[in-house]
Amino acid sequence: MKKALVVLSGGQDSTTCLYWALSQFDEVQSITFDYGQRHKIELKSAKKVAEIAGISHHVLSIDTFQKLGGNALTAEQEVKNELNDNNLPNTFVPGRNLIFITFAAAFAYQQQIQDLVTGVCQTDYSGYPDCRQNTITALELAINLGMESQMKIHTPLMWMTKAETILLAEKLGAFDALAWSHTCYNGQYPPCGHCPACELREKGFQEAGIPDPLLSQRAGFPQKH
Amino acid sequence: MKKALVVLSGGQDSTTCLYWALSQFDEVQSITFDYGQRHKIELKSAKKVAEIAGISHHVLSIDTFQKLGGNALTAEQEVKNELNDNNLPNTFVPGRNLIFITFAAAFAYQQQIQDLVTGVCQTDYSGYPDCRQNTITALELAINLGMESQMKIHTPLMWMTKAETILLAEKLGAFDALAWSHTCYNGQYPPCGHCPACELREKGFQEAGIPDPLLSQRAGFPQKH
Repeated sequence: MKKALVVLSGGQDSTTCLYWALSQFDEVQSITFDYGQRHKIELKSAKKVAEIAGISHHVLSIDTFQKLGGNALTAEQEVKNELNDNNLPNTFVPGRNLIFITFAAAFAYQQQIQDLVTGVCQTDYSGYPDCRQNTITALELAINLGMESQMKIHTPLMWMTKAETILLAEKLGAFDALAWSHTCYNGQYPPCGHCPACELREKGFQEAGIPDPLLSQRAGFPQKH
Repeated sequence: MKKALVVLSGGQDSTTCLYWALSQFDEVQSITFDYGQRHKIELKSAKKVAEIAGISHHVLSIDTFQKLGGNALTAEQEVKNELNDNNLPNTFVPGRNLIFITFAAAFAYQQQIQDLVTGVCQTDYSGYPDCRQNTITALELAINLGMESQMKIHTPLMWMTKAETILLAEKLGAFDALAWSHTCYNGQYPPCGHCPACELREKGFQEAGIPDPLLSQRAGFPQKH
């Protein structure tokens, strides 16, 4: 009986990962972090996605990032498309993925789950250094040493382009759920269409040559935005 | 101008580290985590210690561990002196140090501080795997890859016995602050004297042949407990 825990943001990549996990493991659970993100709408998306996939869904709150402030995702700053002076996006929340994955591992530890799945991706990526394979490999080691555990952090999308991820999602039957996933950094529905996250999503579907089910399938959604 | 950030729990080891940092760096700041610990009294100790040392003190709250539950430090469980079935103390909070150090690094990142100091110790230690050098080394790498930073995590007490730590604290002039540090897991003042943390502290002072300033120096403290 192989169990896995998927870190589910409610976005397209983690939704695809959830379906990947369903194809690989006997039991799949999901965990979502409520960390004061401006796009709170993704919490609703995550819940809906887990419901469509028929898996259990846990929400863990983290109040710390908001107190740290200093970035456009958890503080009152406008999302910028250009990079900051440090060559990182102004949506970069230092340590966010390290913290998410570590808390997910702590939760998994308590549930005797040894397989974690996260949708981080290095190809066509968002510019966050903690989405890269080297960070994940080092973190996996730190977690296993620090918890005396044997966790495996799976990153099925790491080396895929956005277009390849979309084709994988289609093959895995994830499109009904993908119609409810949320991507827009500005937390808008319909999506704003011009933030870096919207642009990356749109580029992916264009390159895959498939319409985004968020636009084509979701009931009551206007066809143009 | 070398700046350091000390992870200050308010206990004897982090208090000693704070004085070590004062001897090594031009500017020292401290950070304490309010994570729902049953020994909330240590937050007061940390504040008092930072005040005596004359350094700035930041408190960051983390509400997540309480929601995770399952251990004797953040949930309603009695602190046990014997180990659990997994050979770990029942006060083990999975991922606690990983999370603390990562949040401290995120804070340091924002303050342009590159030196972190933590009082973890592998010799005479409390049985927590995330206090060991291998965990810290892996975590330092994960943090630096994940934040594109060049943080150094200093662990001056890593290979010292408790007795050696106490002699170091004396040499560094930390005893006035140490009188206000807090160790007891049961959050009691005067300390309960029988939890694993109290026993470890007492053993250290006995071996160093020096009276604990918490007992000998602190005004109004009963001489016997």
